Amino acid sequence: MTKAEALELVYEKIKVGKVLGMMSSLEHWDAATLGVPEKSVAERGMAAGWVSGENFKRFIAPDTLEAIETLEAFNNELDEYERAMVREIGQAYRKFKAVPPEEFEKFSALTSQAQVVWEKARKERDYEMIQPYYEKVLEFQRRRCDWYGYDKHPYDALLDDYEKGATVEMLDKFFDPLREKIIPLLKKIMENGKKPKEISGSFDLNKQRLLMPWLTDIVGYDRTRGKVGEVAHPFCTTITRNDVRITTKYHEDSLLSAVYSIIHECGHAIYEQNMREDMGKYSLDECASMGMHESQSRLYENMIGRSRAFAERLLPRLKEHFDYFADWDEDMLYRAINIAKPSLIRIEADELTYSLHIMVRYELEKAMITGDIKVADLPGLWSDKYNEIIGLRPNDLADGVLQDVHWSMGAIGYFPSYAVGTAYGAQMMSTIKKSIDVDAAIRNEDLSPVTEWLKKNVHEQGALLLPDDLLIKATGEPFNPKYYTDYLSEKFTGLYL
Amino acid sequence: MTKAEALELVYEKIKVGKVLGMMSSLEHWDAATLGVPEKSVAERGMAAGWVSGENFKRFIAPDTLEAIETLEAFNNELDEYERAMVREIGQAYRKFKAVPPEEFEKFSALTSQAQVVWEKARKERDYEMIQPYYEKVLEFQRRRCDWYGYDKHPYDALLDDYEKGATVEMLDKFFDPLREKIIPLLKKIMENGKKPKEISGSFDLNKQRLLMPWLTDIVGYDRTRGKVGEVAHPFCTTITRNDVRITTKYHEDSLLSAVYSIIHECGHAIYEQNMREDMGKYSLDECASMGMHESQSRLYENMIGRSRAFAERLLPRLKEHFDYFADWDEDMLYRAINIAKPSLIRIEADELTYSLHIMVRYELEKAMITGDIKVADLPGLWSDKYNEIIGLRPNDLADGVLQDVHWSMGAIGYFPSYAVGTAYGAQMMSTIKKSIDVDAAIRNEDLSPVTEWLKKNVHEQGALLLPDDLLIKATGEPFNPKYYTDYLSEKFTGLYL
Repeated sequence: MTKAEALELVYEKIKVGKVLGMMSSLEHWDAATLGVPEKSVAERGMAAGWVSGENFKRFIAPDTLEAIETLEAFNNELDEYERAMVREIGQAYRKFKAVPPEEFEKFSALTSQAQVVWEKARKERDYEMIQPYYEKVLEFQRRRCDWYGYDKHPYDALLDDYEKGATVEMLDKFFDPLREKIIPLLKKIMENGKKPKEISGSFDLNKQRLLMPWLTDIVGYDRTRGKVGEVAHPFCTTITRNDVRITTKYHEDSLLSAVYSIIHECGHAIYEQNMREDMGKYSLDECASMGMHESQSRLYENMIGRSRAFAERLLPRLKEHFDYFADWDEDMLYRAINIAKPSLIRIEADELTYSLHIMVRYELEKAMITGDIKVADLPGLWSDKYNEIIGLRPNDLADGVLQDVHWSMGAIGYFPSYAVGTAYGAQMMSTIKKSIDVDAAIRNEDLSPVTEWLKKNVHEQGALLLPDDLLIKATGEPFNPKYYTDYLSEKFTGLYL
Repeated sequence: MTKAEALELVYEKIKVGKVLGMMSSLEHWDAATLGVPEKSVAERGMAAGWVSGENFKRFIAPDTLEAIETLEAFNNELDEYERAMVREIGQAYRKFKAVPPEEFEKFSALTSQAQVVWEKARKERDYEMIQPYYEKVLEFQRRRCDWYGYDKHPYDALLDDYEKGATVEMLDKFFDPLREKIIPLLKKIMENGKKPKEISGSFDLNKQRLLMPWLTDIVGYDRTRGKVGEVAHPFCTTITRNDVRITTKYHEDSLLSAVYSIIHECGHAIYEQNMREDMGKYSLDECASMGMHESQSRLYENMIGRSRAFAERLLPRLKEHFDYFADWDEDMLYRAINIAKPSLIRIEADELTYSLHIMVRYELEKAMITGDIKVADLPGLWSDKYNEIIGLRPNDLADGVLQDVHWSMGAIGYFPSYAVGTAYGAQMMSTIKKSIDVDAAIRNEDLSPVTEWLKKNVHEQGALLLPDDLLIKATGEPFNPKYYTDYLSEKFTGLYL
């Protein structure tokens, strides 16, 4: 195979992969926004499975490896885009190929069953029901660490699935300062902190909907190149970079829920909308990592959306639609959008405590992978870890060890990317603030200086660089979790103490 | 290839074809109901094209022919489903294969361009703009008649694309009595007929929407196995037989438009919903023909929805929502839903004149195919034919020869299936009325006896039989257009004379 032939072959695979990916996204959007009639579920699932299976089959075909190896041999003759393309595809290919096909098939069958069992187990608070599935998932993932190989810690092989380049060494350096600084801070807040007034009451759904265009405009989401839907669990999905869709869910009893889910999903969406079209050919018009995606959504949601300056702009909108806020001032709102307290459910956690929830899971997964703890002991260990880190024990399995779907999906190593992303965002924001008056931009309701910085330094970079290299280029240094702990300490000390 | 291998191969092709078909349907539904952002159109079109091209490529692969020939050799050992499957696939395969691939490709490129040009030509009333495209389409289709072959008339080869088994001989027998009986009837109505009051005014869209569930229930459309959307041009699309979706469009100034588009699309939808699941394996869970599909929609729309009995049930609903009808009685409504008059636009034509619009096109196409008329002369010939058959001349090209998209799509032979379907419905209704009191069923608002008959005799038959064989089995005789002309004559004589 010549270099030109290899490039052509890879480009063609990427093109077809994009088509099949687009079909999967449309299928998912349709199912989530309109629902699938019960009697159509099986046939629909079979079809969706065929599409992703076909995509996988085409990718994993032997000619892909031949093309990769050909291009690797010509590495010095490739330009930076081609080189990044080969790096991305080569790594993904070898990770898949490291697993014997019959094991992969068994694992796929196991996890599709396990997710159904998990739903039931959680509902019935029955750990024994799911335990054998978790054990098999763990056994497979432990073997996969060996199949794929690792430098220092077996968990590294799995972390890299979700956050390229992430290792136990890096994550320990991330979680240790959180443990040292944030846990005591939370304790202090609970003991001596001010008690902010919380927003409570019933908020008309149609009035809430009126806030949506303003919120999406603030983030810079281009609604003419996408759509906003309503579903039970908000998400962002990309059909093409010119058709990036977000969804939200309005709750009568929780005004902030939709406000912040919209900002969050818009943060994801502008990352996708701002990708460079000419990088599509190389499949580099994709996020650098899951953590990098999360960095964008959380930067907007928390560092901008929960800032004092944003509270100043949000308050008049709330007053306009809801009499409830007649007596509120900016300070009250700023505090109300930053309620920090220990809680049991990760997905409902506030900005201060969110990463502590991830810490629980990180420590448990790390010890599971080495065999230091057993699946059978997870419910008790979970309760102990929550008590140690958050200061609360679960009431039952549903708000304890059975709250997350991830392990039944077979995903071990996924959680840390959520927390790491938040910290990426803090590091970026620290750099941004050196040249841009972010608070003034928010007060002007014109975030374009911030968005332009992110567009240039993050969005348009796509998957060209590994996360750490992207951070070096954008902020001048590799991942440094200090920005995140400093940001949290300063913000919440100011708010509460 | 053994018989078992051939069957397996065909079943697998059918399965994959269904998956890709489902993806195409979802893509189409999404585009029609939500619209595609302008900047996403090209990429989206490329993806949709890839999916249908992939479907075609898999079907047309040489192993399909090998399987067909193997199964044809075992014809006596096949059961009726296998035999029908081989008949359907064999015919489709050979029709495609009759066209040299490079000609097929040229034709595809031509027609995708021609549709864009047609839009522009119609808007600018410029026939010369589209004429060379029509000429190339005609040239290709005339050659295709030879490539594929025919017994008596070259047009037969094209008619069969849309209506299996249709021939010039059959269609002449259909259109001749229409010409003899319906054209004079229309003339008499225009000269001496009563002048019914037409519905006019402005009708609140939300009130119109309240009629939808009642209308769909009457037809027996199962909304839990589908969805009702709103789009510019109503259609019915099948994701799976348990997810059959219809759309409608509400017009403030035309109350009847949505009412009858809903009934019409529900007629299509129940055909799809009532297919037998076990026939999916053979790809026989599909309509017997386009005409057969149209027979169901038009039977419900016209023979039921525009009946005197239906007017009796519709009137109280209209009175409930619209003060406009306060002074109306059943007779007035019955006449108002059956306004018959000469018109220029096919898709807006009434029940009496609809097939006359098709007659114009049939006669022109037949003469084009034999070379008796030239594309350059179509505008004038169109005007003459409309004058001769309908009694009106177009005002310009947009309500004349450029009104339909079909020829720019490359479709010659398509139109007759619309009219033939209506006549199938009349033949069925004549049989149904021998054992079922249809008017009583409508007055009871319980059409299940009718729907059950259609389900058993038409819907559940799928594509097992050719249209004519289906009619013989269901009604005891082959296609007989007399039922249709008799029905029209009787109904409109009663209404107007």
